[in-house]
Amino acid sequence: MEKQFIYADNAATTKMSDVAVRAMLPYLQEIYANASSVHLLGQRSAAALFSARQQVAQVLNCAPKEVFFTSGGSEADNQALISAAALGKKQGKCHIVSTAMEHHAILHTLEALEAQGFTVTLLRPQADGIVTATQVAEAITDTTCLISVMYANNETGAIQPIREIGALCRKRGVLFHTDAVQAAGHLTINVQRDNIDMLSLSAHKFHGPKGIGLLFAKSNIQLTSLIRGGGQERGKRAGTENLPSIIGLATALKDAQEHMQQNTAYITGLRDALRNGLDKIDGAGFNGSREHCLPGTVNYSFQGVNGETLLSLLSNEGICCSSGSACSAGSLEPSHVLLALGLSHETAKSALRFSLCEYNTMDEVQTIITKVTEAVNRLRR
Amino acid sequence: MEKQFIYADNAATTKMSDVAVRAMLPYLQEIYANASSVHLLGQRSAAALFSARQQVAQVLNCAPKEVFFTSGGSEADNQALISAAALGKKQGKCHIVSTAMEHHAILHTLEALEAQGFTVTLLRPQADGIVTATQVAEAITDTTCLISVMYANNETGAIQPIREIGALCRKRGVLFHTDAVQAAGHLTINVQRDNIDMLSLSAHKFHGPKGIGLLFAKSNIQLTSLIRGGGQERGKRAGTENLPSIIGLATALKDAQEHMQQNTAYITGLRDALRNGLDKIDGAGFNGSREHCLPGTVNYSFQGVNGETLLSLLSNEGICCSSGSACSAGSLEPSHVLLALGLSHETAKSALRFSLCEYNTMDEVQTIITKVTEAVNRLRR
Repeated sequence: MEKQFIYADNAATTKMSDVAVRAMLPYLQEIYANASSVHLLGQRSAAALFSARQQVAQVLNCAPKEVFFTSGGSEADNQALISAAALGKKQGKCHIVSTAMEHHAILHTLEALEAQGFTVTLLRPQADGIVTATQVAEAITDTTCLISVMYANNETGAIQPIREIGALCRKRGVLFHTDAVQAAGHLTINVQRDNIDMLSLSAHKFHGPKGIGLLFAKSNIQLTSLIRGGGQERGKRAGTENLPSIIGLATALKDAQEHMQQNTAYITGLRDALRNGLDKIDGAGFNGSREHCLPGTVNYSFQGVNGETLLSLLSNEGICCSSGSACSAGSLEPSHVLLALGLSHETAKSALRFSLCEYNTMDEVQTIITKVTEAVNRLRR
Repeated sequence: MEKQFIYADNAATTKMSDVAVRAMLPYLQEIYANASSVHLLGQRSAAALFSARQQVAQVLNCAPKEVFFTSGGSEADNQALISAAALGKKQGKCHIVSTAMEHHAILHTLEALEAQGFTVTLLRPQADGIVTATQVAEAITDTTCLISVMYANNETGAIQPIREIGALCRKRGVLFHTDAVQAAGHLTINVQRDNIDMLSLSAHKFHGPKGIGLLFAKSNIQLTSLIRGGGQERGKRAGTENLPSIIGLATALKDAQEHMQQNTAYITGLRDALRNGLDKIDGAGFNGSREHCLPGTVNYSFQGVNGETLLSLLSNEGICCSSGSACSAGSLEPSHVLLALGLSHETAKSALRFSLCEYNTMDEVQTIITKVTEAVNRLRR
């Protein structure tokens, strides 16, 4: 008999929704022409591409021409930072402000920029996993060319004060990028309201396909190409347009937006139950902000327990969760995010993240609580 | 009634095969976990990823660890060139040899490298669209760090003497990259036999999915990351692994390899019929090599006719073909490939490419011949 699993790792990736799969399928074998081809079938693909771009732009409240499809969130993050750095350099501005809890797609790109002579200030979040707009304001100098602060953290789910930071950046005339990979599809994103200049997102975090994401960049920003070649994406991202996945992204994003209120209410209910259950475990420490957080993401440290061992034990019991992000899974280092929150190495290494979605049930949450409680107790014995 | 189309633009992109679609589908909603996640479902995805990598490596005759999945051929081309350039620079070798008929993913990356101080020699192919190993040999200098010559041209289908060039590069100790985007799935590629150090391919050119490709790089080559972040692809290409598309790529590549002999025979039959028909049109000039060429690609100039206009006319008649590559479609410049062959601007602008696959029929070929003949005559009147 096939083992039953409880999937509580939706911050790592999600199951595609039926609606996104159904939307994609016709583009594999029917409307398959190259969207850059001149003939009528190419034009049909181009029309579908345009309407997907419009659909996405509507959700983000930007212009279609400000949407650049990429192969995912990491590529979008890299391109945003490299573009802003190139623009800054032209003006003699080589200082970048970001946070110590960003995804590695940001942090490693910043390291590469540092090697090229840029100076990077990484803000440490408060104990609740949130950086304040005041911290950002104090870090800005005359040579700051970019602020990059994630919308919501991937490990704690903590939501950052993006609107305040956006307003501040606009006032100070500094470009503002946000890695919204964890937020998109879960929170209402409005780039105009939030004064966001550049934003990255990835479809597979909200029940869309893997291998597709986008970079929103305001029309006044001259992007640097990471991938050169054909004139796709207005010359800023070469490569045959991945139309099936773009359709999947647009469909999943629209679907997430339309069901956000209902999903948030439902997932928050599950999440609260999970928190209540985990709070009862001796030596369980909540990581992040209980108030300003994504509906589905929950992170706890379990005193005296090794997170990796706990993860394994739970996995054998059919519960899929994570310690740290999937992108650095297998690394023996404790989570850089939890260290940035001020946790000790030991406490950071005892942490687990559970990330729920609308496909989870209250029964599953109860099973998670029971199994985690048992496993923690067993490991402590 | 839905208009019937004849799709003869398979060099731009292909319809996905049933076998590739069927292979991909379970990875959208069943085996959907992040291949980097530690839990059992993640391990299941990782196992599928590993076996896809093995499958691909077997077809190319390389080690699985020499396969780096990318978002497509353009990304692979960019990464290959940038990596070789970085390695060359370390040794004080800043000269690159390539050809004037490469895809723009190569040419535009070379331009970017020139702006960084590299010297680039672009070989002009002979009149039949083929560069010779002698030309390559003569272009190599003491400071040459890379030879990049495409396996087969995307506009003429002309196959380059890759094995000879590979042997030469090995002898001279220069890295050899080949853009095999048009060749993969159509010709037997064997990186060991051909002494290829790096190779790019793209799944959507052989009935696989769009948005996925790979860079083969021999294990002794230290790649430069274009996309930084998580440790995926042995730290050389960040971003959650696009498992469904990787499975689709591997399946399509294996399928193409297994049916290559039979497909080649069939497509060559169609192609010969098409050539015979088009040869009969007054002032029709064959472009490329009749002997050393891909089975399905046919390129003709039609004296006194504008290729774009002809393309449009044919498109209205339900025939989908191309003038130049899709990646530069819409550009008013004549094809850089045909100019490199020595064609005049006028002749280059009168050219059309027909690219056939195993889904085309002899009836379709006859219709193409009839419609092209009619359209050319009509435009000349």
